[in-house]
Amino acid sequence: MDAIDRLLKPRSVAVIGASGDPTKTAGRPVSYLLKHGFAGAIYPVNPKLDRIGALPCYPDIGALPEVPDVAIVLLGAERAQGAVRELAARGCAAAIVLASGYTETGEAGARRQAQLREAAGRMRILGPNTIGLVNLTDRIVLSASGALEMDHFPVGHIGVVSQSGGILGALLSRAAARGIGLSKLVSTSNEVDLELADFIDTLVDDPATRVIALYVEAIRDPARFRAAARRAAAAGKPIVAFKIGRSEAGARAAVSHTGAMAGADRMYDALFAQTGVIRAQTFADLLDVPAALATGRHLRGKRVAILTSTGGAGTLVSDALGVSGFEAPAPDEATAAALRALQTGDHAALDRNPIDVTLAGLQPDLLRGAIRALQASPSYDALVIIVGSSALAMPELMAGAIQDCLPLSDKPILAFVSPHAPHVAALLTERGVPAYAAAESCAAALNGMRLVHALQDQHKQALRASGDGTAAASAPTLLPSLPAGALDEAQAKQLFAAFGVTGTRERVVHSAQEAQAAATELGGRVVLKILSSEITHKSDVGGVAVGVDAAQIGDRLDRMANEVQTHTGDRPTRFLVQECVVGGTELILGLRRDPLGTAILLGMGGVTAELFQDTSLRLLPPEGGLDREEALAMAHALKTWPLLDGFRGRPPADVEALADAVVAFSHMAAQLGERLAEAEINPLFVLPRGQGVRAADGVAVLVR
Amino acid sequence: MDAIDRLLKPRSVAVIGASGDPTKTAGRPVSYLLKHGFAGAIYPVNPKLDRIGALPCYPDIGALPEVPDVAIVLLGAERAQGAVRELAARGCAAAIVLASGYTETGEAGARRQAQLREAAGRMRILGPNTIGLVNLTDRIVLSASGALEMDHFPVGHIGVVSQSGGILGALLSRAAARGIGLSKLVSTSNEVDLELADFIDTLVDDPATRVIALYVEAIRDPARFRAAARRAAAAGKPIVAFKIGRSEAGARAAVSHTGAMAGADRMYDALFAQTGVIRAQTFADLLDVPAALATGRHLRGKRVAILTSTGGAGTLVSDALGVSGFEAPAPDEATAAALRALQTGDHAALDRNPIDVTLAGLQPDLLRGAIRALQASPSYDALVIIVGSSALAMPELMAGAIQDCLPLSDKPILAFVSPHAPHVAALLTERGVPAYAAAESCAAALNGMRLVHALQDQHKQALRASGDGTAAASAPTLLPSLPAGALDEAQAKQLFAAFGVTGTRERVVHSAQEAQAAATELGGRVVLKILSSEITHKSDVGGVAVGVDAAQIGDRLDRMANEVQTHTGDRPTRFLVQECVVGGTELILGLRRDPLGTAILLGMGGVTAELFQDTSLRLLPPEGGLDREEALAMAHALKTWPLLDGFRGRPPADVEALADAVVAFSHMAAQLGERLAEAEINPLFVLPRGQGVRAADGVAVLVR
Repeated sequence: MDAIDRLLKPRSVAVIGASGDPTKTAGRPVSYLLKHGFAGAIYPVNPKLDRIGALPCYPDIGALPEVPDVAIVLLGAERAQGAVRELAARGCAAAIVLASGYTETGEAGARRQAQLREAAGRMRILGPNTIGLVNLTDRIVLSASGALEMDHFPVGHIGVVSQSGGILGALLSRAAARGIGLSKLVSTSNEVDLELADFIDTLVDDPATRVIALYVEAIRDPARFRAAARRAAAAGKPIVAFKIGRSEAGARAAVSHTGAMAGADRMYDALFAQTGVIRAQTFADLLDVPAALATGRHLRGKRVAILTSTGGAGTLVSDALGVSGFEAPAPDEATAAALRALQTGDHAALDRNPIDVTLAGLQPDLLRGAIRALQASPSYDALVIIVGSSALAMPELMAGAIQDCLPLSDKPILAFVSPHAPHVAALLTERGVPAYAAAESCAAALNGMRLVHALQDQHKQALRASGDGTAAASAPTLLPSLPAGALDEAQAKQLFAAFGVTGTRERVVHSAQEAQAAATELGGRVVLKILSSEITHKSDVGGVAVGVDAAQIGDRLDRMANEVQTHTGDRPTRFLVQECVVGGTELILGLRRDPLGTAILLGMGGVTAELFQDTSLRLLPPEGGLDREEALAMAHALKTWPLLDGFRGRPPADVEALADAVVAFSHMAAQLGERLAEAEINPLFVLPRGQGVRAADGVAVLVR
Repeated sequence: MDAIDRLLKPRSVAVIGASGDPTKTAGRPVSYLLKHGFAGAIYPVNPKLDRIGALPCYPDIGALPEVPDVAIVLLGAERAQGAVRELAARGCAAAIVLASGYTETGEAGARRQAQLREAAGRMRILGPNTIGLVNLTDRIVLSASGALEMDHFPVGHIGVVSQSGGILGALLSRAAARGIGLSKLVSTSNEVDLELADFIDTLVDDPATRVIALYVEAIRDPARFRAAARRAAAAGKPIVAFKIGRSEAGARAAVSHTGAMAGADRMYDALFAQTGVIRAQTFADLLDVPAALATGRHLRGKRVAILTSTGGAGTLVSDALGVSGFEAPAPDEATAAALRALQTGDHAALDRNPIDVTLAGLQPDLLRGAIRALQASPSYDALVIIVGSSALAMPELMAGAIQDCLPLSDKPILAFVSPHAPHVAALLTERGVPAYAAAESCAAALNGMRLVHALQDQHKQALRASGDGTAAASAPTLLPSLPAGALDEAQAKQLFAAFGVTGTRERVVHSAQEAQAAATELGGRVVLKILSSEITHKSDVGGVAVGVDAAQIGDRLDRMANEVQTHTGDRPTRFLVQECVVGGTELILGLRRDPLGTAILLGMGGVTAELFQDTSLRLLPPEGGLDREEALAMAHALKTWPLLDGFRGRPPADVEALADAVVAFSHMAAQLGERLAEAEINPLFVLPRGQGVRAADGVAVLVR
């Protein structure tokens, strides 16, 4: 049994600094252990007390009658370190440190946290600044969260890891009130030792856990997170993550709350997307989506039957589902006939969806019949049952009727409860029908199920494909002999070309004569630019001329030299003569550094796309560059993707060559690593299909 | 006392078709009238019963001892009509008709509804298909909604009008559970007679109502709605509307639910924006936002202090506020000093926001002190107080402490309740501190307050400006002598020019010689196009040539005639020679017809903007065209507005001339009304500042 297993399921718990007053934070852990029925040994430690209730109290850690599996340390930051050192010396497996006053308070706190780590030695630490953990499966409560004042929690299949202690209490109490069953809840907080990935791994191996929910402030170790997420995917356990910091104010608050560098929010989108983690869009989604996933039911399409006995709420749900891309088709003929057979009366409108089965809420047989008809119908992939006021009089009967139908198919069945009736919603959820009070929650839950289905498909494909994937692009044997520091445009494009991104045809020239010879050789009209590793905005100083022909280029070069000299004080001596690229679509291809890793950025060029910030990002995986599928997905993710795909009669662009270029660029970034401080191709012209791409300008900074 | 006043505050109520069984829908109204303490006379009508409880029952309407102010008609659609006719004959002021089976079921239902209207004569009708109304101010319950099983409702200042009966029950029960006080609730449903605008007007005049909340499926009379919204704005009573039908599925469901043509969802955005109605983005917002507005407190800026004793939840709220554009600045020095003076200990971080006042939840004096410091601080425009688990032990003390501070300033104070604690949230809301369980709700509430503040400013300005506004553009004395039907391009541009939108310089020609003369006269390179009122996509048939000079144009015209003939079978005989426009930004200016009215559409041109659907819409007001301010606001509302405003070194565009063109186009649409079936300028070139605009192509269809 390893330390984390002992932490989650200890046979004995020492509570260091326990108070005899259960209304104080330091009094809660012992009180909660007893209240929620911990079966192992509890050892309170407090030199000032003889007993806490029926339990003998020990004066110090040395006096404990055995080595505890786990210790909850309730002392302040000043004294916690000493206790941790003593516990480690006695061979305790893990300590839960509640004290605050560490990295979240600044530099002095960070030093204190480093000392805590050192004091722990080989003993594992949860925290500091944590509220502890709750193992609901085994009714083991190692926490001071006030949420544990409750007597009863539904036990279920959702494992929760939160980087905030207060949020743990919020999730625990909110889940309990809604009948959403959890398996384990852990607050990792400052993560001096045990962190997100440790508990994702543990929950992947936990038979009681089917779905993992994460409250994330900052992922401190992206590589471990990635590996843990991959294990979860392989085990078929979806991860849903809510990440704070979508706004600058929120990011600042999270940083000051955690003391961690969080990284840009968009990078988390990329990380989650690349690791198959479903991002919860709101905090409510962090329970709403797992509640649906924990049913284990499968959503195979986007057609939803909305069964209602109250018109308005059905409309509300169909609207929210529609906004999220679901469809609510009318019943097929056979299904409509089956529904008609259930009741008499001509007002029930069975040619439409929401399907209004009058009084269904009051007649369990009718409700059962309608649900069965919709479960059997080939027209629907899921059901949402609207619960109106009329159903509230007999919630048990209604919930029972729905529950009876659950085994008949594995289509998802959710409920929307229109009036305020939390007891009815909780009852339904406990019976296996996740129930929601917001139409948007129904949409989010179904969306989560749709994503899981797609991810599981992808995962199966990836497993099938493994072994026959394309080999990583072979590394260029040697970097071209390029200087350190900022490269000039020609050098940057040589670098990109060495890794497989085709540049424009061009010649470096030093005089009017050389320019004329180069223009003649390249043929037609050309582009003339100054060549410099210092001047990045060449047009601003008069250093770019487009559409020049061989006859004019000598004069044009002299004029350019004069103009640049006027602007900069220096007369340029090196120029680039470059073919004109016509008929291409301009993109940007670059890399971005972030605490989460190095990302490849693909963006549409041009001012309009720039205004819409139309870019897509992928983080480099630990094994190297991106694969072609990811590169193509990046292009597809652009809102202006149609511009590459023959929109309004444009010639379809060479998307295959674009994907090759993205892959090549990403392998360059992966292989050069830290040596490549900056790199960007702007513009990258994507020519019509079959004609490839051309890097027309670019920057790179090499570090040796 | 008019009929609507009698409907909302009757002295006597007849209940036609009352049942003695209060568990049946037909038994509820009498039961609820009694339960909630109606002080007037109740007359149940049912030939089969002698009494309902202590009340005598009347065999028919003729037997009633007096003319009732209001009748609730509980009969089915077949018999309701006769009862309505009898009630009207006796002089009853208004009838509430609950039966369904009218427009919402199709054509036969629509005929039945017309008959109902006819039967009512001068008597007013609420419904049919309504669940009735509730006047909470006066404890008068004229409804069969199951939500009225509750014993107690908080009475307050939010008046609700819902076009769905089921939704009325949802709003009533949800508001009650949250401590949100309502004044009146009306379900208008099929609106055969009384409709949204009637009750907006009534609520504007109701002293108990400060905020109006609308659940909208379809606005049947936009002009009346507009007038009622204007009255509400003048009275300083904000309107918050949730409109169903953002998605196609939802719109279809709403249409089939109401039998009304709803109009495009974007038109509602325009209508609400132009009438100062705040659009609720989710159904939850429909209570969340009014709850904040009903406090009557004023949000003057976007800087929010977040006061917390639990780190995670503060971060959650600051993030959601940040996403909505609010700021959470750190305390200024004086405020930080005031906070520091409140408590000892070095862990409270007072240099940041969320402001973490440890234990504030447990110490009312500390909480009061912190709130007062933040109320007095010039750094904040509003406060959000985070309620964590620690505050739950003594909710009365906490709520009392916050309530004590309310009179000290009129800055908004909201609460976010992190754990599940609906009783605490309700207590706070009832004490004047609207409390929310979702961070997004706090953001929506503050956003609503910000909009109201902006609207009230605008309204004051409008009042000041009234009288000295620009006069409507004078109508062209005569329409140019244009044919009926689809105009050709030259005619369309003549029409636009007659109303003040400058077109390109151009000549209609019929031969190579005429084309050459025109090109010479216009000078430089020109555009040559075929001129036809039938061929709308000229380029598709080879009917456009750009950059032609006078020397080539004869040949080019002959080739064009051949090519068009190949494509269409007809040889074109009329051509347009038109100046080339260079250096302008392309836009689209057109009109759109909708059940809500005629809208002017301004959009950015070019394929990229088209992909982003970058357009803005304004409905024509009843008094005529748009004013310049609205026209400028339309341009500013474009996401690509920077393209007109000197983005990335572009010359700033002639936005003044663009606004003039939009105003002129809108006056054309207003003055021609139905005679102008279609009109669109595409592209409209906006030249650099001082150079005006040019309509370069356009279509128009006139009906005579």
